[in-house]
Amino acid sequence: MADAMSSLSVAVELARALIRNASVTPDRSGAQGLLADRLAASGFEVFALPFGEGEALTPNLFARLGRGAPHLCFAGHTDVVPPGDAAWSTGPFDGTVRDGRVYGRGACDMKGGIAAFVAAAEAYLSRHGTPRGSISLLLTGDEEGPARFGTVKVLEWMAAHGHIPDFCVVGEPTNPTCMGDMIKVGRRGSINLRIEVEGVQGHVAYPDRADNPVHRLLAILGALTARPLDDGTPWFQPSSLQVTSVDVGNTATNVIPSCASAAVNIRFNDLHTGASLAGWVETVCRQYAPRARVESRISGEAFRTEAGAEVGLLADAVERVTGRRPALDTGGGTSDARFVAQYCAVAEFGLVGASMHKADEHVAIEDLVALTAIYDDFLERLMA
Amino acid sequence: MADAMSSLSVAVELARALIRNASVTPDRSGAQGLLADRLAASGFEVFALPFGEGEALTPNLFARLGRGAPHLCFAGHTDVVPPGDAAWSTGPFDGTVRDGRVYGRGACDMKGGIAAFVAAAEAYLSRHGTPRGSISLLLTGDEEGPARFGTVKVLEWMAAHGHIPDFCVVGEPTNPTCMGDMIKVGRRGSINLRIEVEGVQGHVAYPDRADNPVHRLLAILGALTARPLDDGTPWFQPSSLQVTSVDVGNTATNVIPSCASAAVNIRFNDLHTGASLAGWVETVCRQYAPRARVESRISGEAFRTEAGAEVGLLADAVERVTGRRPALDTGGGTSDARFVAQYCAVAEFGLVGASMHKADEHVAIEDLVALTAIYDDFLERLMA
Repeated sequence: MADAMSSLSVAVELARALIRNASVTPDRSGAQGLLADRLAASGFEVFALPFGEGEALTPNLFARLGRGAPHLCFAGHTDVVPPGDAAWSTGPFDGTVRDGRVYGRGACDMKGGIAAFVAAAEAYLSRHGTPRGSISLLLTGDEEGPARFGTVKVLEWMAAHGHIPDFCVVGEPTNPTCMGDMIKVGRRGSINLRIEVEGVQGHVAYPDRADNPVHRLLAILGALTARPLDDGTPWFQPSSLQVTSVDVGNTATNVIPSCASAAVNIRFNDLHTGASLAGWVETVCRQYAPRARVESRISGEAFRTEAGAEVGLLADAVERVTGRRPALDTGGGTSDARFVAQYCAVAEFGLVGASMHKADEHVAIEDLVALTAIYDDFLERLMA
Repeated sequence: MADAMSSLSVAVELARALIRNASVTPDRSGAQGLLADRLAASGFEVFALPFGEGEALTPNLFARLGRGAPHLCFAGHTDVVPPGDAAWSTGPFDGTVRDGRVYGRGACDMKGGIAAFVAAAEAYLSRHGTPRGSISLLLTGDEEGPARFGTVKVLEWMAAHGHIPDFCVVGEPTNPTCMGDMIKVGRRGSINLRIEVEGVQGHVAYPDRADNPVHRLLAILGALTARPLDDGTPWFQPSSLQVTSVDVGNTATNVIPSCASAAVNIRFNDLHTGASLAGWVETVCRQYAPRARVESRISGEAFRTEAGAEVGLLADAVERVTGRRPALDTGGGTSDARFVAQYCAVAEFGLVGASMHKADEHVAIEDLVALTAIYDDFLERLMA
């Protein structure tokens, strides 16, 4: 109990110290330096891995203890989204403790998760010394941004240097309302499309002499939204298409405009690929507007980790600490797990995400305790 | 023939001079001053009639020669629509002559028409001196815009000062493809509607926690454009609905926006009124978005002039010059004729309108010649 109390206060104090390093994407704060020193003191070999173009490099960090198997890697990000326009009841970078909670940007997404893992690893090492396997951390300073020079590049470096783990836990806040709700074992894919339709400008009273691109675009968007893309699969919720913007910008009420465009995002399950959806949108566009231009950018393909032994051990650890068997889920947005999935089995488990990206982001101290205990118990089971 | 050649070059040079006065609505150029000087030199009594609120008055001009009957008034506008986004092959305000055409914004709508009437009146007066009846011109600088302080106000002034004519010819470009196609003896009505739909903003990966206003707006616009409003009447073409803009302005690809809006214009025949259509749009909006806001502005109701003696003489003049009997039609856009129709019989005849409001607006020089000859012949017949 003295041990638990001490690793508890360790996690809380480390979370607060990380929050006080204001690290809005891309992280240029001292958060990674603080973690590098801390991990080096525990015997980790630490690699600072800045990547990028020009002078503004993205800071990344890889740290590993031990050379043996199994190799467990904890992946996360030190950067945070901006405080936003809504008012906070406390400074977003103060790390205030109030009513049993730690407040601050990144409290649950995901400096709290990082602090819990570091505290758990320290507690495990203090009990066992060097493990038979390896413990590592992959931390990036650009997950909330374009993510071009973050986790993707570190994974390439890890592959080149023999550091690909056997299993990876991403510490994103996966629990909708209570600790123990949910382990994520996959994610839907995401694709962004921009559709541009050109027509022929003309007077609104003579539509037969013009070619209204708005009407063509409406037909395209009507066809794209006419029916659900699918009904979901045993492991995935249904795919979802959202038209996020339509833009014409014609202020003349008596003129048919020459151009109209729309932005569409699709979150898709494993019945689709980014390419299959881009092709489908292209076909629909051609049908209603042969000269339409479609630009597509795939943010990530759908992926799912088979529920192997490690996922079972993680679920066991969650159940022992929280008393609840977590659901294995693939819902929600994308995360850097989509990059890790290309190298090894990956699952995501962290704090409660209800306040993430909002004003007054916070984490309950009891949740930080629970997560530290879960990571610690998972290390025990995996390294046994 | 020497006379015809000279009034030809008169009309062409005057059209070019007017085009060089860049008079995008509301006309603040020197176009009306140029015409005032020209008409005064021919013996017209000229009245500058600026109307409006505040300092930015709308320039208008009324000029009359003679006091007797019949009183023929030529009505038109010196303002033009903007050049637009599409590229021009020549400066839109250069008045370039190329391949037998005059190019420029307003070439056919309707500086060419004004030039033809002024050239015709000058030719008629040079042959006959002061006519037994009266010739007048009503010119406004705000026909393509809100038109609140243009023709409407000048007509009120004309009524107050004993200048209401027996017959009015509006010089809008009425011919779809060839000179002699069409005299307009009425116009459809026009109503502009702005539809605003509010939703609930949210993350694009969680559409069930948001309410996408774009999807509601797409459903509304789909219903409004699903089928024709009617099949037309003996005197009127079918009514037409055009969506002229849709605007969201959301640049975040992972966010469902909170608001979406659209602009709609309806050109309607005498089966509808502005009020009946506003009510219909309101009902459709309520069906798909109970909180939608609809703003409507009726630009004009549908109207029709009975085909009396003057319309017959105008058709005779068109037939003599072009060899074709013009159709009596009510199609196309609104014009200031809807205001004139409240005071006296009105018909519209001008140039070929195929390039109006487009890039590379132009008029064929032979059409300017023909129109000058038609107006001249009509003056002969009416004043005989």
